[in-house]
Amino acid sequence: MFHSAEPFFRPRTVAIVGASETGGGGWAKAIYQNLEYGDFPARTYLINPKRDELWGNKVYPDFKSIPDEIDLALTIVPAQYVPGVLEEGVSAGLKAALIYAARFGEGNDPEGKKRADAIKLLCDETGLVVCGPNCMGALSLHNKQLFYPATRVRSLSAGDTGVIFQSGGTFMFWLERASVRGLGFSFAVSSGNELNLDLADYINFLVDDPTTKMIVCMVEGIRRPLAFKEAARRAFEAEKPILMVKVGRSAAGKEAAQSHTGALASDDLVLRAVCKQYGVTCCYSLDEMIEAALVFKERRWPKGPRIAMAGYSGGGKGLFLDYAEDEGAVMATLSEETVAACETEIDEGLSGQNPIDCGAGIAFRQKAFSWLCQQVVADEGVDIMAIQGQLPTRDDDPANPIIFSDVFDATDKPTIAYTRVSQNVSDAGRRFQEASKMPFVQGLDSTIKALQHLVQYGAARDRGIETLPGSSGDIVSLEGDRLGRTLGEFGLALPKSITASDVAGAVTGAEKIGFPVALKILSPEASHKTEVGGVSLNLKDPDGVKLAAQTMTANLLARSPGAQVQGFLVQEMVDGLEVIIGAREDSQFGPFMVVGFGGVTVEATQDVSLRMLPVDKDTAREMLDELRGKKLLDEFRGRSARDVEALVKAICGLSDLFASHRNQLVDFEINPLMVGAEGEGVKAVDVRFVEREE
Amino acid sequence: MFHSAEPFFRPRTVAIVGASETGGGGWAKAIYQNLEYGDFPARTYLINPKRDELWGNKVYPDFKSIPDEIDLALTIVPAQYVPGVLEEGVSAGLKAALIYAARFGEGNDPEGKKRADAIKLLCDETGLVVCGPNCMGALSLHNKQLFYPATRVRSLSAGDTGVIFQSGGTFMFWLERASVRGLGFSFAVSSGNELNLDLADYINFLVDDPTTKMIVCMVEGIRRPLAFKEAARRAFEAEKPILMVKVGRSAAGKEAAQSHTGALASDDLVLRAVCKQYGVTCCYSLDEMIEAALVFKERRWPKGPRIAMAGYSGGGKGLFLDYAEDEGAVMATLSEETVAACETEIDEGLSGQNPIDCGAGIAFRQKAFSWLCQQVVADEGVDIMAIQGQLPTRDDDPANPIIFSDVFDATDKPTIAYTRVSQNVSDAGRRFQEASKMPFVQGLDSTIKALQHLVQYGAARDRGIETLPGSSGDIVSLEGDRLGRTLGEFGLALPKSITASDVAGAVTGAEKIGFPVALKILSPEASHKTEVGGVSLNLKDPDGVKLAAQTMTANLLARSPGAQVQGFLVQEMVDGLEVIIGAREDSQFGPFMVVGFGGVTVEATQDVSLRMLPVDKDTAREMLDELRGKKLLDEFRGRSARDVEALVKAICGLSDLFASHRNQLVDFEINPLMVGAEGEGVKAVDVRFVEREE
Repeated sequence: MFHSAEPFFRPRTVAIVGASETGGGGWAKAIYQNLEYGDFPARTYLINPKRDELWGNKVYPDFKSIPDEIDLALTIVPAQYVPGVLEEGVSAGLKAALIYAARFGEGNDPEGKKRADAIKLLCDETGLVVCGPNCMGALSLHNKQLFYPATRVRSLSAGDTGVIFQSGGTFMFWLERASVRGLGFSFAVSSGNELNLDLADYINFLVDDPTTKMIVCMVEGIRRPLAFKEAARRAFEAEKPILMVKVGRSAAGKEAAQSHTGALASDDLVLRAVCKQYGVTCCYSLDEMIEAALVFKERRWPKGPRIAMAGYSGGGKGLFLDYAEDEGAVMATLSEETVAACETEIDEGLSGQNPIDCGAGIAFRQKAFSWLCQQVVADEGVDIMAIQGQLPTRDDDPANPIIFSDVFDATDKPTIAYTRVSQNVSDAGRRFQEASKMPFVQGLDSTIKALQHLVQYGAARDRGIETLPGSSGDIVSLEGDRLGRTLGEFGLALPKSITASDVAGAVTGAEKIGFPVALKILSPEASHKTEVGGVSLNLKDPDGVKLAAQTMTANLLARSPGAQVQGFLVQEMVDGLEVIIGAREDSQFGPFMVVGFGGVTVEATQDVSLRMLPVDKDTAREMLDELRGKKLLDEFRGRSARDVEALVKAICGLSDLFASHRNQLVDFEINPLMVGAEGEGVKAVDVRFVEREE
Repeated sequence: MFHSAEPFFRPRTVAIVGASETGGGGWAKAIYQNLEYGDFPARTYLINPKRDELWGNKVYPDFKSIPDEIDLALTIVPAQYVPGVLEEGVSAGLKAALIYAARFGEGNDPEGKKRADAIKLLCDETGLVVCGPNCMGALSLHNKQLFYPATRVRSLSAGDTGVIFQSGGTFMFWLERASVRGLGFSFAVSSGNELNLDLADYINFLVDDPTTKMIVCMVEGIRRPLAFKEAARRAFEAEKPILMVKVGRSAAGKEAAQSHTGALASDDLVLRAVCKQYGVTCCYSLDEMIEAALVFKERRWPKGPRIAMAGYSGGGKGLFLDYAEDEGAVMATLSEETVAACETEIDEGLSGQNPIDCGAGIAFRQKAFSWLCQQVVADEGVDIMAIQGQLPTRDDDPANPIIFSDVFDATDKPTIAYTRVSQNVSDAGRRFQEASKMPFVQGLDSTIKALQHLVQYGAARDRGIETLPGSSGDIVSLEGDRLGRTLGEFGLALPKSITASDVAGAVTGAEKIGFPVALKILSPEASHKTEVGGVSLNLKDPDGVKLAAQTMTANLLARSPGAQVQGFLVQEMVDGLEVIIGAREDSQFGPFMVVGFGGVTVEATQDVSLRMLPVDKDTAREMLDELRGKKLLDEFRGRSARDVEALVKAICGLSDLFASHRNQLVDFEINPLMVGAEGEGVKAVDVRFVEREE
């Protein structure tokens, strides 16, 4: 399923193909100098048929002339020469190549497409692995292999974060900022258009790499959905969090990403459901991904969502609460003992309840502040601790990082510091942050967002990845009366209904079902029942049913003399909250579930939640909790609370039904599912499905 | 309406009361040193009855001993001594005071409240103006008056931004960051609990100050809504944009702000409507306010919303489009000529359509990039230009700011640069930014947000502030039949209805109204019409009406033998999209309009838009455009587009009705207003109102 990125990331020998003073706008030279700077971590050779010597080294005309086997070729030649270079290389034992150049089939260039096909074929036939084309290179920081055409990469630190960016233009700017903020890197690759090695391969490599503890990526398109899922699963099991910025949430952004990379654009909502399933963190912005990565770097997964905050700014506390509500964050409730302990140290008139504003006084008693934070983080009601802080910008700043590290050392819960507004991070600041043992997340809104990402990852770890059971291979019966029986087996009920051949039968049927009932006339002339007055709702007694049946017969006959009345359908009146639940097969990522509130008004606001199958009860509850209109399930505007338990069961039932009959079904939607009051259950009022064509 | 902040911000003489080496935790000394650093811009005296000399100066026991009249007292004494100090000062001619200390009635301290009342009375009786209490001081940058207890304020630059922060803890951190980012300040004040001088007073002062061109504030509560509105109106007319971070959007955040400041918490949604009316920009975060202020600093108001972007990163372009969709930003469409011109300079296979990804090649041809940006910004379809950039961090960076300033100079449209990820801003970076003549907004999402703020301010400038007409003083009739006539005068129609005394009358009435109709039985025994089968909808012909009237009579009599049937109400059947429109009086800010979609599902998602009255057609359209469910107004799921024109008229009609009868009305809601298909108009199906109690 995966190509090995091993010979690409850990070559013993490297050749720069197209080595010249000015080749590739000076890229060949810049890369050579970076390898020189790294003390030539791999034996390095130069290839250029037009030269004999360069930078004090022999230059070879081709691979076969080199008295060494080359693992990796860095090609700094125009696109049209690349296929020939690689063929020659492979014949001399070449194992991997990095293609910086573009024009391998992006856009509509047929020549480029030919080149791309030739390289793909070469890879398939010989096992050659290729990074790029149209990329900015790669870095292996622990052994200073900097295959990047500029010196600025030298400032990056080695560390435990692996980086995969499909966007080459953004790659280095992100790395530089992340480095300034305190991240270090194991491997980093600008993966370009991923002709051969792709996102899934790189993730897979980083999962196996012992120096990598976390993976961040900027993604424009996922080329091999199944391989991506498998790589994500492996990363999850290895406890290596993946953080991702995904381009193309909007239609316009998606089109841009697609035409830029040539990747198949996935349905963004489905991809997000896949990410939720595999504990992949989707970040909104490149900066957010840095702050979140700093928080994840601590490698403390919260046991729950309850956040405590301590600071000394009333305005900061207010904003923290505002952002917490926006992001659905849960604020911890402290025990009476903790509150009382805290109140011994904070300014008069202020409260020791979370979040704590200690007042300005404590700014001058930082040890007391540290002690207070230790009391708070030790409270059983707290899962995560956030502490107000500010990084020093100068070396002579008297601030002492022990104020923070003492809190960190006193607990095994995630503990972070936050600044209220961004600041430049100097070397002094970064050293302070390291000595504090916790990240200083920049800004209050970024803090809440980063912590919520952590909460969700913690929840994913608790939950694990549920694997999709194999399809049973059976065919279930969904025709006519049998639909009800099949649904029943999965805990999904249709409204009770009885077909009667005449008025008297309708009355008897209604009595059997129980009042109130709905009555519908059955006649070839009444296919649009409402229009011909052929539907009567909410009939409360036998007389009502009788009168309605007679009236609708009279109405129909008045309209269509000679119409044939076949009888009546008597149905249980179903009242409740309209919900849509559906299971569907995504062609890339497999079956998923969608849940939302019914009715055209809510459809227009796209208030839905998606998850990949299987969906268990906890996940079903999570899905409902994500809906903006979730209040509708509670007591609301005088209407009693809805039967959420039955709704959760129905969602799981549909998940089971669909998952076990994927051989048969491609789409199965219940719209509306009527959710009654607590204890009244749910009814599948309208069921539509699409069966697989053989 | 306003207290003058003049003697506070421009004192000729200052006394530090409580001057001592260690007074107020060293604050007295720190403030003295800052005044010394500023070369004593005001004649400065020290007061402390326990000392004779300090820092080489004579120390006076009180105000009256000083051989000079003191304009401003900086009080560094405990709260309980402050009232006495001020009384003595006033008797010696004191005009203004700055109270740093807390404990003037925050929380529930009765002693503090007494102190606050004493000072308020003193201010009222003598005209003394007071800043604080519970604040961090104030700065007048142009004349280096730094009434702040730390040396770090010395790094701030003078400039044209006035700053008012109710949150003292956040004040300096924000100023420092804003300064690093390139803002300079005229006056800055930590306004604290605003016992006397308040937000409105400070805004009013800054409007009159010739050095101030823009006002930013962090607000926890607005103490005098009418004064705030007047100050905001003056700022708008003086073309001095106000940018604001408001704490307390959430219930919890609001409570925190309230207990922290003692200010009356306003309804946040109403305050936001006020801000929209007066062109006040509400920012989400403290960082967002900095980036937006940098954009506003250019003082170029866009003529429209159409944004063009040029860069050389496909990933950046994709993210830009994603964020644009999130924020509802409008992307410009370039003319064919502009596209063709651009395509001469960008990489093969890429498009010259906006937003433009030029490809990596142009990174090395920055002059070509500048030329391309000039072509784009000159296009008639473009209102705002955003250019990819990166600030240099080192002095020896070869980047040339003329690339950017040439674009700025070639146009009078707002033109900004953006970075794709945040960066430290060094002195070199800030100089580059200045020479570029445009801000380098940090991050793509921040860029879109800042530009949208600018677009909205530009729109507000085009629109101006509509003033609320005075109430007519008339009483309109809203009882029974007269409600329809009154509504009619304001362009609001009730459904047609006729009361008939018998079955025949019902049929005639229905024919007069036109089919289909709804029929309701009128009877004291049928107060719950639906339950007794006393309502029949969608009757399509005379026979239907007749049958329904007879049936419901029979039904009623069967249920309640001897029931008195008074007749029937025949009503036009109204079908359409349910909308809620309401006008209401906010006790703090006056009358406002709320618009949303009807039905319980949408109520649960709180999808509403608010504006202060009066609401004109443009504003009404803007309100509809803000609704998440706005798609419902277009053709949607097979339903034809709604009569938006009629809906807009109805909103304006309700605005007129309410505005001109504020003497009578406090609340007037139409729910639902049924919006028919295009050309079919709207009908006020249910009208509820509350009249003012005399």
